[in-house]
Amino acid sequence: MKTITSRDNAQYKDLKHLAGSSQARKKVGQTLLDGVHLCQAYLQLRGLPQQCVVSETALHNPEVGDIVGQLEARHGHVLALPDALYKAVSQVEHGVGVMFLIDTPERAAPAALSVSAVLLDNVQDPGNVGSILRSAAAAGITQVYCSAGTAFCWSPKVLRAAMGAHFVLEIFENVDLAPLVQGSPIATLATSGYATQRLYDVDLRQPVAWLFGHEGQGVADDLLSAARHQVVIPHLGQVESLNVAACAAVCFFEQVRQNQG
Amino acid sequence: MKTITSRDNAQYKDLKHLAGSSQARKKVGQTLLDGVHLCQAYLQLRGLPQQCVVSETALHNPEVGDIVGQLEARHGHVLALPDALYKAVSQVEHGVGVMFLIDTPERAAPAALSVSAVLLDNVQDPGNVGSILRSAAAAGITQVYCSAGTAFCWSPKVLRAAMGAHFVLEIFENVDLAPLVQGSPIATLATSGYATQRLYDVDLRQPVAWLFGHEGQGVADDLLSAARHQVVIPHLGQVESLNVAACAAVCFFEQVRQNQG
Repeated sequence: MKTITSRDNAQYKDLKHLAGSSQARKKVGQTLLDGVHLCQAYLQLRGLPQQCVVSETALHNPEVGDIVGQLEARHGHVLALPDALYKAVSQVEHGVGVMFLIDTPERAAPAALSVSAVLLDNVQDPGNVGSILRSAAAAGITQVYCSAGTAFCWSPKVLRAAMGAHFVLEIFENVDLAPLVQGSPIATLATSGYATQRLYDVDLRQPVAWLFGHEGQGVADDLLSAARHQVVIPHLGQVESLNVAACAAVCFFEQVRQNQG
Repeated sequence: MKTITSRDNAQYKDLKHLAGSSQARKKVGQTLLDGVHLCQAYLQLRGLPQQCVVSETALHNPEVGDIVGQLEARHGHVLALPDALYKAVSQVEHGVGVMFLIDTPERAAPAALSVSAVLLDNVQDPGNVGSILRSAAAAGITQVYCSAGTAFCWSPKVLRAAMGAHFVLEIFENVDLAPLVQGSPIATLATSGYATQRLYDVDLRQPVAWLFGHEGQGVADDLLSAARHQVVIPHLGQVESLNVAACAAVCFFEQVRQNQG
């Protein structure tokens, strides 16, 4: 374990800059996982981080101690910081005091859809994107394709909301969704309040690609008309629509229900 | 329409204090609805606010103009503020410049459950509470009971996330949920990752009360064991659980699906 105690240390300054700037994180292709749950999930599902950063107080926390112990046994890099220096890096209030610095996976998207997938067109809110990733992973979906306008999946907010789902998903970002939808060999489904076919009346017992759009405007018109099915989640009551993450959860678990028979 | 141009005006100072302090809002039993959608929904579903507050620039926005026109036709109170004064009150960045000051409804909870309802036990995150209210309203559920530890439903964050659902729901806060669940004449259902009965195998074609709990710890043990059914949403994949608002949406719309046959 290495300890840095000076704010002027170059490695510490780099880390602080990275933590505070999404541009810096994108430029170097790294991000930070904050908190015990995300770090445990990463260790279990993906392996060693580039660096584990802990506050001195957190070293006395048994869960953090376990993470640090696992890293040291596997020759991982652990950096301890005095609490004041740690706090200046962490973006989480009242966090427990552990984070991983990891490389952001960059994947080239497949040319065609082949397994059940989620396509996110311009979904803005990091909390929504994170919740959708989490629900998709829980429903056994493995691929996520995001348009350029969708919130960056590896941002700390999306990571926190997805609770480790990132580490079991293949996430493709900055994808041009239109050719994927147009040429799709599997069924593509978009939800729309104007559709007449009910979600429950579509046969979901084969791979499908779910298309969700912007919180206000929904799925862009060209994508909506290219989708094989436009489906509606029937609404009772006077409220016009569901939150996009709630809508996605309903769709994914209708697929689970049908597949479980 | 009344215009205030001085920051020292007593009414303006009261408004600013209210906007910035959840304690002040609770004390006087009022809250603020920020934005065109919430104000339109309130006007349509509940009627006149105590006060409509607009920025001078927003008066030129057609949707805001329509709201102000409706209020003036019905002798409602409209207060115009220079943009700088309005901005110091609004909690929404890049908002359009219209808000309603409304009384927070206070309702005594019925002694027993009788219609389909949602019971929130210590749900912390305002975004989750708002999304649950929105999904409940869309699924035709009309009653919501919240424990003392649940996020305050009439906070601006919950109001924004619920997109007007508040105005079609009966919301009861600071409710002791245990007696309601124990004495319930209708089926009470709690989701739990440890349950063995699948959500899909429960007959939901009668009124049911859904019980959702804290984001980390779930429903409290005493409530969980008092619920008539503990049900699981089957998970595929390695991710341990759904976000509570996603979980609620799946439950509510399974109820809708079963009721639509």
